[in-house]
Amino acid sequence: MHKTPALAPVAPFSEHERDAVYKAIYSRRDVRNEFLADPIPQEVLLRLLDAAHHAPSVGFMQPWNFIVIRDPAERERLWQAFLKANEEAAAKFDGERRSRYRSLKLEGIRQAPVNICVTCDRARGGDVILGRTHNTNMDLYSTVCAVQNLWLAARAENIGMGWVSIFNDADLKALLEIPDAIEIVAYLCLGYVDELYTRPELEVKGWAQRTPLQELVFEGKWRG
Amino acid sequence: MHKTPALAPVAPFSEHERDAVYKAIYSRRDVRNEFLADPIPQEVLLRLLDAAHHAPSVGFMQPWNFIVIRDPAERERLWQAFLKANEEAAAKFDGERRSRYRSLKLEGIRQAPVNICVTCDRARGGDVILGRTHNTNMDLYSTVCAVQNLWLAARAENIGMGWVSIFNDADLKALLEIPDAIEIVAYLCLGYVDELYTRPELEVKGWAQRTPLQELVFEGKWRG
Repeated sequence: MHKTPALAPVAPFSEHERDAVYKAIYSRRDVRNEFLADPIPQEVLLRLLDAAHHAPSVGFMQPWNFIVIRDPAERERLWQAFLKANEEAAAKFDGERRSRYRSLKLEGIRQAPVNICVTCDRARGGDVILGRTHNTNMDLYSTVCAVQNLWLAARAENIGMGWVSIFNDADLKALLEIPDAIEIVAYLCLGYVDELYTRPELEVKGWAQRTPLQELVFEGKWRG
Repeated sequence: MHKTPALAPVAPFSEHERDAVYKAIYSRRDVRNEFLADPIPQEVLLRLLDAAHHAPSVGFMQPWNFIVIRDPAERERLWQAFLKANEEAAAKFDGERRSRYRSLKLEGIRQAPVNICVTCDRARGGDVILGRTHNTNMDLYSTVCAVQNLWLAARAENIGMGWVSIFNDADLKALLEIPDAIEIVAYLCLGYVDELYTRPELEVKGWAQRTPLQELVFEGKWRG
């Protein structure tokens, strides 16, 4: 198991390379409405999934799976499941806020040519996982790191992505035949884009504003 | 609130820029032992934190805070809290696996000049959060996206980062004066590095092997 040199001099980042990473981070958007119909070539999709698979995972558990959904009829059924959940969600808001909620488009399930359901198999690797004893959420968090890798890689491939969290898990599990023991972490919509919002869509539309960074950073202690 | 054009033509990624994003994703490591003592300049640290702050968040909730810990005496106390939790974790393994667990260095708390505790304020933005009604973990997941942004930005700045998950939350909360209502998501160690593992350290050391991607990807349905 020690066939290749384990440690190697770090590959430095040039300023141009560093800026490219920041460009992906700052121009990434939660896309709902800008998806083009152009198909995503299989080799590009595999690059995105391989980037996700190279996320950190607790105890090198790699607890994730990726269900790729392209069939329009299946995406129509998934959209119906979203609609039902979205009505339940709208009902949680009152008055003007509810009207404004209803005016937002919160998914691109039918428009994006590729949807991906990302799951976490919490039993993978046995009962005791290095690093998960004290924080039992760590395997879910590893799976989220995979989602964020996928998001940034997609941006670098000029592909937009949106995360749809408005579903009843039971509906997704029934439609996608996901076993009870498997946890759904994310439902993603992907497609090429030629336009993106310059700021987060919920900021542009006045739903919420960005908090200044300095209000979020403490020195040494909470509120320090 | 509509002062700047909301939608703009997407800034494309050149092949070189795209490769820089993949370079960050593939060469990122969970660093425990390669930290140099060189301080991280404040403007560089703020770039990393701002990259984290530009992660996606459910309902644009931005639920995260970042507690930056530099004081060596405080890091010594935090390391003692790690040691206690690590003994509890080691006891979960049997025989040869326990010996091997004990031989692994799983943190860089005292060695890395900067530690960051990342938290999630689940009450921020009120009781009803757009996108969190059906998946109540979404605010925690947003915070994890911020951690992964920070990790990749750090790599692009030639800074290594490790995520230490072996703590009792109560110990961290007492030492860092974090209120009960705030959830700790991650404890991070950061410092410049001149060497990194070429593959995940747990793979190099024979703890676990990488799963082939094709075993993790399904078409249309679970196991499809």
